[in-house]
Amino acid sequence: MEKIISYIDSNKDKYVEELKEFLKIPSVSTNPENREDVRKCAEFVKSELKAIGLENIKIYETPGHPIVYGDWLKAGEDKPTILIYGHYDVQPVDPLNLWTNPPFEPTIRNGNIYARGSADDKGQVFIHMKSIQAHMVNNGSLPVNIKFLIEGEEEIGSVNLDNFISSNKELLKCDNVVVSDSAMFDYDVPSICYGLRGLAYMQVEVTGPNRDLHSGSFGGAVNNPINALAHIIAKLKDDKGKILIDGFYDDVLPLTEKEREEFKKLPFDEKKYKEGLEINELFGEEGYSTLERASARPTLDCNGIWGGFQGEGAKTILPSKAGAKISMRLVPNQEPEKIEKLFTDFVNKIAPASVKVKVTSLHGGKGAITPIDSPAIDAAVEALRKGFGKVPLFTREGGSIPVVNTFQTLLEADTILLGFGLPDENAHSPDEHLNLSNFQRGILSIAHYLNELSKIKK
Amino acid sequence: MEKIISYIDSNKDKYVEELKEFLKIPSVSTNPENREDVRKCAEFVKSELKAIGLENIKIYETPGHPIVYGDWLKAGEDKPTILIYGHYDVQPVDPLNLWTNPPFEPTIRNGNIYARGSADDKGQVFIHMKSIQAHMVNNGSLPVNIKFLIEGEEEIGSVNLDNFISSNKELLKCDNVVVSDSAMFDYDVPSICYGLRGLAYMQVEVTGPNRDLHSGSFGGAVNNPINALAHIIAKLKDDKGKILIDGFYDDVLPLTEKEREEFKKLPFDEKKYKEGLEINELFGEEGYSTLERASARPTLDCNGIWGGFQGEGAKTILPSKAGAKISMRLVPNQEPEKIEKLFTDFVNKIAPASVKVKVTSLHGGKGAITPIDSPAIDAAVEALRKGFGKVPLFTREGGSIPVVNTFQTLLEADTILLGFGLPDENAHSPDEHLNLSNFQRGILSIAHYLNELSKIKK
Repeated sequence: MEKIISYIDSNKDKYVEELKEFLKIPSVSTNPENREDVRKCAEFVKSELKAIGLENIKIYETPGHPIVYGDWLKAGEDKPTILIYGHYDVQPVDPLNLWTNPPFEPTIRNGNIYARGSADDKGQVFIHMKSIQAHMVNNGSLPVNIKFLIEGEEEIGSVNLDNFISSNKELLKCDNVVVSDSAMFDYDVPSICYGLRGLAYMQVEVTGPNRDLHSGSFGGAVNNPINALAHIIAKLKDDKGKILIDGFYDDVLPLTEKEREEFKKLPFDEKKYKEGLEINELFGEEGYSTLERASARPTLDCNGIWGGFQGEGAKTILPSKAGAKISMRLVPNQEPEKIEKLFTDFVNKIAPASVKVKVTSLHGGKGAITPIDSPAIDAAVEALRKGFGKVPLFTREGGSIPVVNTFQTLLEADTILLGFGLPDENAHSPDEHLNLSNFQRGILSIAHYLNELSKIKK
Repeated sequence: MEKIISYIDSNKDKYVEELKEFLKIPSVSTNPENREDVRKCAEFVKSELKAIGLENIKIYETPGHPIVYGDWLKAGEDKPTILIYGHYDVQPVDPLNLWTNPPFEPTIRNGNIYARGSADDKGQVFIHMKSIQAHMVNNGSLPVNIKFLIEGEEEIGSVNLDNFISSNKELLKCDNVVVSDSAMFDYDVPSICYGLRGLAYMQVEVTGPNRDLHSGSFGGAVNNPINALAHIIAKLKDDKGKILIDGFYDDVLPLTEKEREEFKKLPFDEKKYKEGLEINELFGEEGYSTLERASARPTLDCNGIWGGFQGEGAKTILPSKAGAKISMRLVPNQEPEKIEKLFTDFVNKIAPASVKVKVTSLHGGKGAITPIDSPAIDAAVEALRKGFGKVPLFTREGGSIPVVNTFQTLLEADTILLGFGLPDENAHSPDEHLNLSNFQRGILSIAHYLNELSKIKK
């Protein structure tokens, strides 16, 4: 490992330059106009896998964006096989005017690299590539068998991934999955995430009159779709943040006493947290701490809303239509399909007869819990300790990586979540960035991890 | 009058062609990019006033868009002086894709002329111009003294008109004001509007965190500005449409028993009304008929709402900001300034401490009631009877023409509201149009009106 450690250290600047090329590709999976860019990004991943020494590299077509696969299986049958999963697609960039540098022109400032996808998830995928390369260059081999699975539809709900995994169980067969698509708890607080939230993402469209009306001539006689939508949204959650959808909490796996104790151990400065967001008060379900609410309790948030006149000045219309995107973060045991139905039924129940309401499910995914008492987790603890010089903490993540649930179901493999992002790196908002020290320590940690995993007796 | 009647009849087609030139100018007063078009439109009005034979024509500058004035005062001191008021600016055109023809390319279909401004208010201003011209061409004079005042900021709240009137009281001194900027009750139901609603138009902006957040990582911990805005909007009006703002109804002038009897006389087909709007149920304050609610009771409507991700697909953000345009139609005795303050105080009272709320007043205007027992109203009844062959009904209009109140206050002149639009001519929405038969009968009615007014003994 000494050779590898010093190799990684001496290639620090080169890694950043190489990462920039990855980040320059605008692989926004939700935008039809970026379709070719997404493909170009898949080709980039393919050539990188080849460059670091993997074999059997192939771009698999799907009805949507392609999946890139590569492997190296010469470590021997007595060594574990690790499936590394990540995604090369990124979130949209709007509002564009709030970016300091253009989102696809990676820029270094204050020890961070700023670009869409830097933290979520290109930078973290690159960490794995470079740690594998470090083993390959120095030893001509890897200490464990490696499979690499990088998809291009994570930001739109991994819509074709389950099918792919289901059709390629033998190809993807493994002892454990490793995913780096989450955040460390804090800078200098390396952490292993053992729980993820699921998601049910809905769209609600309200139609009132068949055309925009003069609000003077019709106001008072006809229901207004924006007002009606506001009434619907207000009835989904009470003033304290408790969700009011019938049956919503029925299947929620409650937090154990031990888990709540672990939550209390995590360093959390509420004052700093509020200052960082510039808010005067936090908000949410009573009876739970902020960290619990943000990661281990289900939520409901409007992600977008629109309707009527949004321009400058005053247009006196009673609009024909209004709509909102409303998503619910789910916790383990909540089934997205069931929640989607509960949501739809509830919205239809409370919608007034004076408007028409259409509810659509845009995407969903299950939450997940990973057992923390396994040799692969022990190896991760040791690897992070060596990479960061600190014993990692166990955390839960509020975001969704639905594929983790699929790996458990279809491959019967537990996923180890090793995040190297930070919570304030703006994963889905303007000025997304990745801390370059964590990028470097991540490469070192994963290089150690491959080595630690090789010590596991099969 | 015989010569004038036949002159108007034989120039029917020419009037429509001339009107098209007026309608082609995109004089959208709220759009900064149409600033020059608005000026061009003022120049058009100026040259028309000259062409029909008015004198003392002048474009008056304001801090915003210009006002056009012209007069003809040679009828003699024993004849009444009538101030004709209208506006040459128009509403914005969006959503543009819902127009059958481009909004500034006037097109004739089914006996209507389609274009932005055709009904509101260019077509109706043109009615007055052409009836004056008919008198001038045939008699070389007008039966009464005429002042013409056409402004370019009606659609943005006539922000500079009060100042202009206040500074030019002598110039504008008159016995009565005539305004054609409203609708007839129905086709073949000529009507005289005796009441108008006022307006208080507000903007509410809600700010949560200082940036868009990942809804997975932060959802549950932080209030969402869209959800908060929906809660605020839902608390402004109950499920039946009653406004909940403290003190909102305090100054409302109640409908008299006689007025409610008059309302009942108006022909109104609720089934046809609903079918025309494609809605299953009407909506509004209990205890009042649909016509009463739409014209003689105050209302609150969201005119627009925005926030977060409005694109295709699913973006999982907890947005930083959300906003809405919310306007209230007021009835006589409600003061816009007082209502704006009640609204602002109420929103600030109900806004949760977990978000920041900014409330702005965009514009406002008072409602008005005109006495219906006067010689000028009697003359209007007779003119409409001659122009349409039917006795007109008295109505109230739900929209706002705040300047009517200003005329009462500053010029001590009552306003006669003679609308030639129809309620379903899409005044503020796509495919705005004006019925050409009403356009023609309007010109005839106003020509009669000038004649009838000349019989009034001063």
